Amino acid sequence: MQLGLIGLGKMGANMRERLKGAGHEVIGYDPRPEVTDVPSLDELAAALQAPRVVWVMVPSGAPTRETVEKLAEALSPGDLVIDGGNSRYTDDAPHAELLDAKGIGYIDCGVSGGVWGLANGYGLMAGGAAEHIERAMPIFDALRPEGDRADGFVHAGPVGAGHYAKMVHNGIEYGLMHAYGEGYELLTAEPLITDVAGTLQAWTHGTVIRSWLLDLLVKALQEDPGLAEISDYTTDSGEGRWTVEEAIRHSVPANVISAALFARFASRQESGSPTLKAVSALRNQFGGHSVKPSGS
Amino acid sequence: MQLGLIGLGKMGANMRERLKGAGHEVIGYDPRPEVTDVPSLDELAAALQAPRVVWVMVPSGAPTRETVEKLAEALSPGDLVIDGGNSRYTDDAPHAELLDAKGIGYIDCGVSGGVWGLANGYGLMAGGAAEHIERAMPIFDALRPEGDRADGFVHAGPVGAGHYAKMVHNGIEYGLMHAYGEGYELLTAEPLITDVAGTLQAWTHGTVIRSWLLDLLVKALQEDPGLAEISDYTTDSGEGRWTVEEAIRHSVPANVISAALFARFASRQESGSPTLKAVSALRNQFGGHSVKPSGS
Amino acid sequence: MQLGLIGLGKMGANMRERLKGAGHEVIGYDPRPEVTDVPSLDELAAALQAPRVVWVMVPSGAPTRETVEKLAEALSPGDLVIDGGNSRYTDDAPHAELLDAKGIGYIDCGVSGGVWGLANGYGLMAGGAAEHIERAMPIFDALRPEGDRADGFVHAGPVGAGHYAKMVHNGIEYGLMHAYGEGYELLTAEPLITDVAGTLQAWTHGTVIRSWLLDLLVKALQEDPGLAEISDYTTDSGEGRWTVEEAIRHSVPANVISAALFARFASRQESGSPTLKAVSALRNQFGGHSVKPSGS
Amino acid sequence: MQLGLIGLGKMGANMRERLKGAGHEVIGYDPRPEVTDVPSLDELAAALQAPRVVWVMVPSGAPTRETVEKLAEALSPGDLVIDGGNSRYTDDAPHAELLDAKGIGYIDCGVSGGVWGLANGYGLMAGGAAEHIERAMPIFDALRPEGDRADGFVHAGPVGAGHYAKMVHNGIEYGLMHAYGEGYELLTAEPLITDVAGTLQAWTHGTVIRSWLLDLLVKALQEDPGLAEISDYTTDSGEGRWTVEEAIRHSVPANVISAALFARFASRQESGSPTLKAVSALRNQFGGHSVKPSGS
Repeated sequence: MQLGLIGLGKMGANMRERLKGAGHEVIGYDPRPEVTDVPSLDELAAALQAPRVVWVMVPSGAPTRETVEKLAEALSPGDLVIDGGNSRYTDDAPHAELLDAKGIGYIDCGVSGGVWGLANGYGLMAGGAAEHIERAMPIFDALRPEGDRADGFVHAGPVGAGHYAKMVHNGIEYGLMHAYGEGYELLTAEPLITDVAGTLQAWTHGTVIRSWLLDLLVKALQEDPGLAEISDYTTDSGEGRWTVEEAIRHSVPANVISAALFARFASRQESGSPTLKAVSALRNQFGGHSVKPSGS
Repeated sequence: MQLGLIGLGKMGANMRERLKGAGHEVIGYDPRPEVTDVPSLDELAAALQAPRVVWVMVPSGAPTRETVEKLAEALSPGDLVIDGGNSRYTDDAPHAELLDAKGIGYIDCGVSGGVWGLANGYGLMAGGAAEHIERAMPIFDALRPEGDRADGFVHAGPVGAGHYAKMVHNGIEYGLMHAYGEGYELLTAEPLITDVAGTLQAWTHGTVIRSWLLDLLVKALQEDPGLAEISDYTTDSGEGRWTVEEAIRHSVPANVISAALFARFASRQESGSPTLKAVSALRNQFGGHSVKPSGS
Repeated sequence: MQLGLIGLGKMGANMRERLKGAGHEVIGYDPRPEVTDVPSLDELAAALQAPRVVWVMVPSGAPTRETVEKLAEALSPGDLVIDGGNSRYTDDAPHAELLDAKGIGYIDCGVSGGVWGLANGYGLMAGGAAEHIERAMPIFDALRPEGDRADGFVHAGPVGAGHYAKMVHNGIEYGLMHAYGEGYELLTAEPLITDVAGTLQAWTHGTVIRSWLLDLLVKALQEDPGLAEISDYTTDSGEGRWTVEEAIRHSVPANVISAALFARFASRQESGSPTLKAVSALRNQFGGHSVKPSGS
Repeated sequence: MQLGLIGLGKMGANMRERLKGAGHEVIGYDPRPEVTDVPSLDELAAALQAPRVVWVMVPSGAPTRETVEKLAEALSPGDLVIDGGNSRYTDDAPHAELLDAKGIGYIDCGVSGGVWGLANGYGLMAGGAAEHIERAMPIFDALRPEGDRADGFVHAGPVGAGHYAKMVHNGIEYGLMHAYGEGYELLTAEPLITDVAGTLQAWTHGTVIRSWLLDLLVKALQEDPGLAEISDYTTDSGEGRWTVEEAIRHSVPANVISAALFARFASRQESGSPTLKAVSALRNQFGGHSVKPSGS
């Protein structure tokens, strides 16, 4: 079928390629002239046959909101918008309402798989009305991994459920990566282990902890032995924070995911931890414990 | 080749089957007459041709130590003992010394894969001298998954390294399982998610968090929807504790693994948490906050 | 000076008594006829001489918001409203704006001390304009502990700063109580310690960890040996959640405060932890570990 | 009464002064000729009248063990040794046995109060036999704060209980300091708070979180505004690690104390966290997230 695709960055461009490979017609729009198929959203609308399906793949927050607002103007009743970006699920209901007022349908779809999705297919979590999901299914089927639809696609619930599921997915991801990280660190700290990279590689098959993330960690260590070329400064793009906020809202103890999130925060405290400065100052006060002067 | 295998429980019996399937001759010993091939360790030694290789697959701690002590008597110089159980790595050096005094070699080998190892092969992490590892390699090759040897087997270092690696593997396992658990709990808490089990299943292909543990969680939810038949009481068999103790010894921050371990402890406090009782009592003291009487 | 006081619950009634003891005139309003001095907010306004100072001490959220809205109608330009309740700091700017539009001043004031404040004085953290703080100072001086003003009162910043400081105060309180709780639990677990309550009491003087909370814990143990009469079910009134949310907003690693918060959540999971059910189900899947059936 | 005191460092010298001020005769031994009263342990024994009481106040581990071994030779049946240092409680039983074989009694006594104990008195937690405790009581009474004996001294249990209680005390101390530290950090991160130091000072009286540690933090901020002169590098002297190890042994969830301990570990990772390097490498692998090169 025919699809409009807004946002041809790293993710969007790969998705376009996978969709085309599956025989779909994709008309892409991106503000960068060198990659776009059409010069404007209006021309994208004009180029698509009604009823249209438009997939939005732009950064979350203001860029996505502005795109949805423009689409509410540019599209027609009966069209369908899918937000495949990493929007916070609380953005979905307003987007759906805005579009619904124009007779335009809305689906939120969490997309996982990163740069590997082009080859492997993407894990997809969709929220929205059943008839909208049904209509977009050929697109979902092309994007998801081959095999059973249920292994790579879910209609998780009404509008918002797709991004909610993706947020939780990313929260889990924080915890998984940190668990592997702690294990890696412990292996590197123990002199008995003379082959850290080999140990991780041995874990990739047959063990209980085998996973795609572990495969990637083995690959990273092959490309950069000892991770010598990388700093520990770790950013976050929001989903981990949102997950912990949701855990608080639902009174869910999220010890592991929050520990992983907080460790990222700490990794970015380049002038040191004020908390530990206070602890160190206290030790100095009561015990005369020697402290390390700032800057030494 | 020929192998003596001590311990024909769940793991040992499966390993025997896999080894026999690969063409090896396995003579098994177990104290239970109905499953053993020979009536005693001495007869096991007698049935094997020197130089012998004997794999020990019994519970860690005293049972393994006693088996090693008996083997030190029953075997001969040039023989080789492999401890494939979940021994603490600190047991390995004493075992190796005891056997070395008799001219008997020693390998510690962590084995992962659970009941699925029979079909899938086991992930193996070995510690010991290179010549011993070399000698046992046909056994390792039969037990590990098919494919490249490095994907499922590692000679991680000298004696102790195998069990150390297995301990860290299990520590990671604690963190991974808990991360999935927290995500699962959050999905179940959110009304927008109308298909929790389907969401987990959709994550099994294409996503960043796909893994064998996730496959098993999907399977568990299919067999017991809503996990209605299981309590949250979660035991531990020691490796998680040892991992955190090693983290302390090496000054490694193990926030995620320890959080997972402590949550298991909490799950077993059937008369409640003394910590929270103290917190609740304090709130009552300073604020007159209503507290819940014991037993209500 | 003269003060209108809205809300004569546990905290408000005590504060009225302390203020009267210091020679201030307090006219109280409460919806309960048996405790109120005036029958309505309008009559409270009529009974106070302009320019009026009115202290609001009602539950946070809707009750405080509605009270502020009514005061915006009932009061006059030049009057001053102080919100002394446990409002979230994000409520303060809207309240201040609403009142400012009528020429009425606004202070937010965090109040700590619980039921003991009547005798000991209350710790006060105020946010607002300097001239408003100055005007209300006789009230603050009467409420705070005797001694230096800086030991018990702070003008922490502009509108919102008082409640922000109180929120952080309560977040710290979560961490402190939990630290004592963990220590208490460990003492009770160790057979060598034959006098747990005596050990805590010995800590109340001379030690590094002496504090008012510790005094209260000793008192609680004297009143209820072994905390036998209390359950571990621990509620929370919001400030701990808000503190962790602020930590996330400011990228502050809040491992200790969040751990204390999450433990309260866990204490209220009366049908068990879904996270641990998932962990237990996974262990059953891969290892055939025995699990505990639900309800056993 | 008469007391031998071994170790005249910061703690020992202060304790000697406090004991002398209470009218006791103290004969001190220290390897540093400039501070010692006698040139050797043997001469210390000779200078004391039997039955002797000797207080050991030297670093834990080997120095304490060697001192106890020498005392077992130098002292006589009926004498009494008190270990007042920060020994691990597991050292106490061996020390007691060694001395008991010579007819010498043994008490382990945790001492808290730091450099302030000279003026304020020390919090004391003792383990040992009742008759030994009774005999040393005049010393305990002189060292502890004035007032009721139970407010500053406890006979916590048999040999080992004193150091166990002190270990738990220090574990709690980790949690308390970290909770204050997190609150301090959050205050510094929030622009609404224009007087961070004043806010902490206001908390010192009347509030729920008032404590001696809070007093010290206020003092530290007065001496070093913004803690500008101190780094966040925070050492640990063992009791926190032991506390978490005991928590593991007793299956006590110690989330708060362990988080405080692990944060100290992290503060000392001057070439970065291997865990976060692994996390960052993983993010780069799957998402092409930009990472920060090492050293930038």
